[in-house]
Formats: sequence, structure tokens, C-alpha cells
Amino acid sequence: MEQAILLIQCPDQKGIIAKFSNFVFEREANIISSYQHSTDPDGGRFFMRMKFVFDNERYPEASLESDIEELASTLDAVWQIHYESKVMRMAIAVSRFDHCLADLLYRVRSGELRVEVPLVVSNHEDARELVEGHGIAFHYLPVSKETKPEQEKRFFELIRDSSDFLVLARYMQVLSEDFLTGYGKDIINIHHSFLPSFMGANPYRQAYDRGVKIIGATAHFATSTLDQGPIIDQEVGRVTHKDKVESLKAKGRDLEKLALANAIRMYLEHRVIRYENKTIILG
Amino acid sequence: MEQAILLIQCPDQKGIIAKFSNFVFEREANIISSYQHSTDPDGGRFFMRMKFVFDNERYPEASLESDIEELASTLDAVWQIHYESKVMRMAIAVSRFDHCLADLLYRVRSGELRVEVPLVVSNHEDARELVEGHGIAFHYLPVSKETKPEQEKRFFELIRDSSDFLVLARYMQVLSEDFLTGYGKDIINIHHSFLPSFMGANPYRQAYDRGVKIIGATAHFATSTLDQGPIIDQEVGRVTHKDKVESLKAKGRDLEKLALANAIRMYLEHRVIRYENKTIILG
Amino acid sequence: MEQAILLIQCPDQKGIIAKFSNFVFEREANIISSYQHSTDPDGGRFFMRMKFVFDNERYPEASLESDIEELASTLDAVWQIHYESKVMRMAIAVSRFDHCLADLLYRVRSGELRVEVPLVVSNHEDARELVEGHGIAFHYLPVSKETKPEQEKRFFELIRDSSDFLVLARYMQVLSEDFLTGYGKDIINIHHSFLPSFMGANPYRQAYDRGVKIIGATAHFATSTLDQGPIIDQEVGRVTHKDKVESLKAKGRDLEKLALANAIRMYLEHRVIRYENKTIILG
Amino acid sequence: MEQAILLIQCPDQKGIIAKFSNFVFEREANIISSYQHSTDPDGGRFFMRMKFVFDNERYPEASLESDIEELASTLDAVWQIHYESKVMRMAIAVSRFDHCLADLLYRVRSGELRVEVPLVVSNHEDARELVEGHGIAFHYLPVSKETKPEQEKRFFELIRDSSDFLVLARYMQVLSEDFLTGYGKDIINIHHSFLPSFMGANPYRQAYDRGVKIIGATAHFATSTLDQGPIIDQEVGRVTHKDKVESLKAKGRDLEKLALANAIRMYLEHRVIRYENKTIILG
Repeated sequence: MEQAILLIQCPDQKGIIAKFSNFVFEREANIISSYQHSTDPDGGRFFMRMKFVFDNERYPEASLESDIEELASTLDAVWQIHYESKVMRMAIAVSRFDHCLADLLYRVRSGELRVEVPLVVSNHEDARELVEGHGIAFHYLPVSKETKPEQEKRFFELIRDSSDFLVLARYMQVLSEDFLTGYGKDIINIHHSFLPSFMGANPYRQAYDRGVKIIGATAHFATSTLDQGPIIDQEVGRVTHKDKVESLKAKGRDLEKLALANAIRMYLEHRVIRYENKTIILG
Repeated sequence: MEQAILLIQCPDQKGIIAKFSNFVFEREANIISSYQHSTDPDGGRFFMRMKFVFDNERYPEASLESDIEELASTLDAVWQIHYESKVMRMAIAVSRFDHCLADLLYRVRSGELRVEVPLVVSNHEDARELVEGHGIAFHYLPVSKETKPEQEKRFFELIRDSSDFLVLARYMQVLSEDFLTGYGKDIINIHHSFLPSFMGANPYRQAYDRGVKIIGATAHFATSTLDQGPIIDQEVGRVTHKDKVESLKAKGRDLEKLALANAIRMYLEHRVIRYENKTIILG
Repeated sequence: MEQAILLIQCPDQKGIIAKFSNFVFEREANIISSYQHSTDPDGGRFFMRMKFVFDNERYPEASLESDIEELASTLDAVWQIHYESKVMRMAIAVSRFDHCLADLLYRVRSGELRVEVPLVVSNHEDARELVEGHGIAFHYLPVSKETKPEQEKRFFELIRDSSDFLVLARYMQVLSEDFLTGYGKDIINIHHSFLPSFMGANPYRQAYDRGVKIIGATAHFATSTLDQGPIIDQEVGRVTHKDKVESLKAKGRDLEKLALANAIRMYLEHRVIRYENKTIILG
Repeated sequence: MEQAILLIQCPDQKGIIAKFSNFVFEREANIISSYQHSTDPDGGRFFMRMKFVFDNERYPEASLESDIEELASTLDAVWQIHYESKVMRMAIAVSRFDHCLADLLYRVRSGELRVEVPLVVSNHEDARELVEGHGIAFHYLPVSKETKPEQEKRFFELIRDSSDFLVLARYMQVLSEDFLTGYGKDIINIHHSFLPSFMGANPYRQAYDRGVKIIGATAHFATSTLDQGPIIDQEVGRVTHKDKVESLKAKGRDLEKLALANAIRMYLEHRVIRYENKTIILG
């Protein structure tokens, strides 16, 4: 037996749920959960996440997938399938501040996040002990204005084949469009503000200067436009006039850890769908 | 054309979604949204809320319903159907504190809550002006220990046929089991604490005495066991050592209004399902 | 006996608290509460709010104030004093959406907000019944591009002497710098976003387009730079991909009411101090 | 120069702030911050936290303290003083679940919490590697019904002189009244529910069974009455009908970490005052 998560999107039309639930029913599979979303039932876009258990001896993955493709093509649908038995591989990049990294590694080790971490890349040496203490390969790739293209190339080669997605856990370097395009897989970034407020550098300083009463953190997909990719999760917390930049940073660290961990948890459950610079969280 | 919301629950089994989505598809209805929940895909209970638009000239409500019954019986399913064109009727009871009542009446008048309010019952005169100012009938039913059975009888007669459900918007009288059973429809109560903390009388005083740092309010279905019915919504807010009982009450009023309004909104959308002294909120 | 709230600000220096608490002690007054804030104890700015009860027969207000002035001048301090017996007067302006207005009027009538409302000004007729139902004068001042200067002039004349501060409870007209300067008193605005995100028009549409996972509302002092005045309170709430612009507006209304009511409550308690485009909330 | 935090409590009376701020002023000390709280200005209890910098060469600690004692005795005041240069020592006890422990150790190592951790005690071996990896002594003290008194004795001897306070970071053993009394110093516990809801064992199971829509965690002082000591901080988070006991636990872990870390941070800043089974958080 195998458990699968099927993600589908297509133009909204009558009968989609019926067709896919029939498809699954005919293969004697048991639906564990099923979520749908329509941007607009009259001619919008339809999204579905269906989790089911099937007998992969009678219906091997390859034949299941070719059958799905056949059905999907009749609906003009794009689809992906993920199998429970296959564990995702998450590469992580970090600079100096390692609170998100330490938080993620703890969640991985304790089994809360079911994911492999093949390696951590950093432009600083600071996190080496933490990473190697978890038995994970640490790659120190210092960067300067001059060496940036070369450094990115090495970074890229390290993660290209070894990872299914990349997490920027407070990696303070902007990645080039070539890197993003070349990698082709999802990149999740944590930005230390409530986007779209305070994009760019020093968001806690910006928040302090503006005198906001609530700060936030935003986990989002990195795209070629800095801090403007689809938002996955946001967390917020109250602050007061007593907070200086340093205490905003301290309070913010807890929000960053939470937003990033939530985003990755949902991502690993294949609940996060990107659509038109937004995310749909199914379930 | 008519819009319907179909609520189903039955023992979990393969093919339920397929059967109902086929049912709808075969009648050329368009599913607007569909939510499911299984308490346990291996032999638990299955719940579904399906919203669809159908042509009630070709498929009149009566025939639709008899077809549903036929399908449901094969699945051992319990079901309800609600039609968009039929507006629910909400009776309200209140005692002295009218903040929840005023909040609800504003939301009804502004169109935020789509519901009729046929009458308001109170054991005090205080809210008469507010209620009648909204053009709603106000019934003053004073109560004492001696007159309680008689008062409840009049209360019951007023709401029995005129309402589809009853909201206790800070009605500070315990309703007898006879009343609850006789009425037979849903009763939503707002309790001014974060249940199960501080059941019974004077919850803000209890919260003050315990020194909690967060207070709450709970909207729940009233049952014969005081403050122990299924919880629909809870809202919370921070307090400090500076708060006295009076300021807890003031802060709590905003939580009460919010929890009750949210619960009613979800109830009117037929998203709230009672099951084993809990609620399932579909969607 | 009279209760007073004394607000002081001055360059930070040793002995300020000692001098003022001695001052009060020598006049046999009883300090009810006292809050201080220093932007930086080494040469920053010092703020204090001191609430005390004094015998105004022995120490009449006028002599108390001239004594304060004498002390304050030795510390280069700016100060204000407010007496419990004097109730503030709050003018309100509103356009079409009256949820904040209705919320405020309920809070005033129920005694939660201790303030007089001499009048409500609107560029629409919609709120007349609500306002007059509370026995408050309603002034309809329609505005067009051409009549704006004339309309503002009438608005100004209505509130200049009759109010101590002005609340813009979803008044959708930008006030001219002349108006702001001429009025000279505080103006509190509610902006329907989590500033500085989504300044300007249609913030819920902006929030929808950006795909944020949390929306907010901001109560702030109006200044000549739109939506950039000192923030008093912010409230936030979660939203999902299921929310359309309309449901963001509905959820946002509750945040707006709360943020504005909280800001006004603190303002009426004289806890809100403006400093360098921020607010300090004492206590 | 030294920085001190002076904590005072006494019957409320006129002139307390004046006397203490004079006291400090006369010693040429600079007040950094000062917070007061009165349970009731008419004959209640008064609390003050005053942070100041003084020249400890001219006014050595011993003479400062004897002067404070002299003043305090005239006001019937109880007081404590803490010096910035002295770092507190926090013993930690843990059982199997080490998420709070790992979180605390990270915060200590990163400098966010300024505290020494002399040792960690556990009735299980699980956390040894984590603790020793931070260079901290780990004491394994297994416990059974029979060995409990003996185990507590060893526990007690380990922490009695080596620690200033004890943190129960998910230590699942009830400490005897003898232990509590013998230790005499503060013990901070994290309870994995929103107290007073769900006291005792398996609170997440209790929360699941009750069907609450919000769960919480509570950091409080341990007293001889289980889960009923003064509350320091509470954190809450939303859950839904989709959450099983396991996911409540996962969500709860983040609340527990946050509540405990916040409580310890405030405790280390000497902001937390115990009074009548409640806490007053000054500042």
C-alpha cells in the first residue's frame, strides 16, 4: 500500500470532483482527505489536493500516473503527485543569524518535520558547529562583490541535484535571476518583516522608525523581485514604544522561526499551491 | 436557478465523494464549494458540505430531495439541505447587558448577517428602545423564582414557530431541560469566559481571582449541561495585573461580540456541524 | 477633591521624578498611578504621566498650575494637566461606512467611553438616522471637487470651538493642510490597513492583490502627510486564500472598530503622547 | 559604576515615590526606569521596580543596602536589590520532551537570555547529548514510586547551592512539599494548557475531548498545589476540528517554548512580583 497526494489545477468546469473521485474510487483507493478551491466557480481556476491510499501492487505508480495524465488532459489540467514513501530533501542557506536554522534542525531531528537535510550552505563560518553537530554537511562559501558569480556557481552545483527545494533561513545575499531560473525548484525565504511593509534591508530599524505597534515576519517563495514573491505564512506580535531596535529583533526572531517552520510544514504536506503571485493553502 | 447547501454525515467508506459529486454532476449542477472531514478514514465518521447551483425548474426541490434520500439511504447517511432563497429566522434573548444584542442588530441591519430577527425576548426592560428602534418586536418577560415555569412557557410559545434558532445574547437565566427539548432547534449561547475555564457565574471575577494573563469568550450550543455544550468559536485577548474586574468586563465585551458574531455567521452559512459534543466547522 | 492627570516631557536629567513626586507629596496629594519613559537615560527625552488626587479647595487649580509652571521651567519641561471633572468633547466625521461610528456611539451611550459627542459631520446623508437616534446633531456637508474649500470651511467652523478633538471614523476625504493647521487640535483617523502596508485608496483590494495572510487596521493621528501620522493602535486578523475583497472588508470592519475604540479610550485617559512621529503610550 | 534594580512593596501611603526617588537622587544615581503598581491607592498594596545607575565606589553596595533598609523600615516595606554585574544561575529539570530545554539552551548560548545554567537534571537519559553538547553538566536521576524520596533528595542537593532558581522545562514529576519548602527559591513551571483549563495529566487529550478552538500554554510559579501557582505568562493559538491529539501537541510545543522563554526573560529582568497567588509584571 502507498499513500499519495495528488495536486491538480485546471479551468473550473462542471464534473471535476466527480471525475477525479470516480477515478480514485474505481481503483479501490481510499480518500483520506480532499480539498478544493475555486477562484470563481463561474469560469475561474480550480485547485484540488486529494490524499488517498492505494494498492501499488495492483496499481503501480507508473500506470496510475499515466491514467491520471489521460484524465487530466481531458480537463486541461496540470497535476503533480507525491508519494508518502519518498522523503523530500531540503537544502538550507544561512548567513550569520542562525536562530531559524537551529529551530529547523531541532524540528527535523525530533521528527516534527519529516524531511532530509543534505547540506547547509553559508557565507560565514558561524553555523558550522551547529550544523555538523547534527551530522549534516556544512559548506562555507564566502562571498564578496567580486566573487559573487563564482560563489553562486558553487552554491548552485552543491544543491542542484542534492535537493528538492531550498530554504533561505536568513541568508542575507540576493540570489541572481540566473540562479533562480537555473535551480528551477522552489525556494522559500523568511523575511523579517510583515510584508509588504519594510521590504529590503534593516526591516526592524524601519519598523522602529515608523513606530508600528505590531511587527511581523513573512515566509514566502523567493522570486526575481526581492521580497515580492507569493506569501506562504505570516506571524505577528505586539511591541510598544519601550522596544528599541534590539528588542524588536529579539521578539522578531520568534516570529521568524514560527513563520518559516509553519511554511515548511505546509509545504512538506504539499498543501501550498502557487498561483498568480499568491499561495493557496489547501487544507 | 437555486443555490443549495447539502450537509451529509455517514460512516466513512469508499466512494462517498464520488457518489455525491456524480449525483450533482448528473443533474448538471455546478459545485461552488465542497468540504469534507473524516474523523478517521479507517472506519470513522464522514462529513460533507456541498454548495451547488442547480436548475430548480428542471429539478424541483422535492424531487431533488427524494433523490438525495435514495442515495443517502444506501450510505446510511443523515442529511440536511438548505436553500439560499430561504432566509433563517433568529430569535434573540437578552437580559441587562445589551452589547452583544446591539452588535448583532447592527450586523443584521447592515446586511453583514443575512437573517431575519422576528423578536427579542428579555427578562428586563432595558433593551426595549434599542430593539424597537430597529423595528423589531420586543417582549418583556420578567422572571422570578416563582414565575419561572410560567415565564418559560410564554417564552417558548413566542419562539416555537416564529424562529429557526435561538441566540442567548447574554441571557442570564438557565433554561430548563423541558424548554431545550421542547424547542428542539439549535440554541447558541455566548459565555463570557474561555471555556472550560470559569464556568458558571461571574467568570470575570473568577478570572481576576485566578490572575490569568489572557481572557476569553466562548460561543457554544446550549445543552442541558450548563456551559458544556459544543464550542463553536472562541476569542481571546491579553490582560495584565492592572486590570480590575471592571476592565476585564470591558475588554471581554469585545471578545463576546466577536465570538458570538463569528459563530452566528458560520451557523448561517451552514458550516457548523455538531458531533459528539464538539463542532466541525466545514470550510 | 479633584483628580488630575499631569503630563510632562523634558530633556532627561537626574531628579525629575524626585522633584515632581515631592511637589505632589508636599501638596498632600495622593498619587494614583505614575508612568515614565525615557527614550535614552543618557541624554534622551523624558516623559511622565502622573495621576493624583488633590484637595482643590486648599490648592485651587490656578495656583497648582502656576506652581507646576514654576517647577517645569527649571527643568525645561513642557506640560499639560487634565482634570477628571472636565469631560472631553469629540467631534466625529464619517462618510458612507458607519460601522466605526455606530460602534463609538454605542460605547459612548453605554458609558464605556466617557466623552461628549457634540456633533457628527458627514459628506453623505446615510448616517443621519443613526446619529439623530442618539440625540446628537448631524451635519450634512456634501462635497465635490469644486465645493471642497467651501465645505471644509463650514466643517471647520462647526468643530473649531465645539470640540476638543476630532475623530475621522471612515471619513473618506483628505483634509487640507489649512484645515489641520487651523484646527490645531488632535485628529485621530482610522486607516483600514496594517500601516505602512497599503497606504492610500482601496487597502483591502491592495491586500487581496498582494495575497497577505493577515490584514490589519491602524488608528493614527492625522497629519498633513496622508496615512503617515503617529500610530496609536493596530489590530490584526488572519485571512486565507478563500477571502475575496468583500470578506476582507467584513473581517476588517471588526479590526477597524477595535483599533479606533482602543485608540480613543487611551487618548481619553491621556495616555497617548506624540513624539517624533511616533506615540508613547504611558501605562 | 553599577546598575541596580530595586524592588519594593509596602502598604500604599502618600509619599513613597517621593521618598525613594529622593533617596536615589541624593546619591547622584540616575534612574533608568521606574514602574509602580497599586492594588488600590486607598489603602492597598504598593509595588515599585526602580532601575538606576550609581557610583559604587562612592556608595558601596553594603552601605547602599543599609540605607535602603533604614528608609524601608519607616514605610513597613519589603525590598530586594539585584545588581547587573551578578548573573543569575538557573537550574533546569526535564523529562523526555526536550523542546523547551533545547529552546532555552539556544537562547542562553546566543546571549538572548543572560543567565548561567549550572546543570540540568532529568529522570531520563534522552536529553544528555543535547545538554552536554552545550558544555553543561547533565545529571540523570531516574525515579520510581519507591525511589522517589531518595531521588528528590539527590535532586535537591544538586541544586540547593548551585542555583538561584529552578525551571521545570516539562519535568513530569510532581515535587513534594518538602522539596519546595526546602529549596525556598522560585520554581518556574511550564504547563501545557491554558490554565485553569485542563489541569493535571494529558492536557492536550483533555483539550481534544472538550473540542476547544484555542489551546494554550502557561508558565507559572510552582507551588504545593499542582498547576495552581501564580501565572507569569500565557500563550495561545488556534486549532480546528482537524487537529488530533498529536497535532495539538505539535502546535502546543511552540506555545510552551514561547510562554516559558517569555516568563524567564521577565523573571531575569526582575519584573515579576508574586502577590496573593498572582503576579505583577512591572514594566
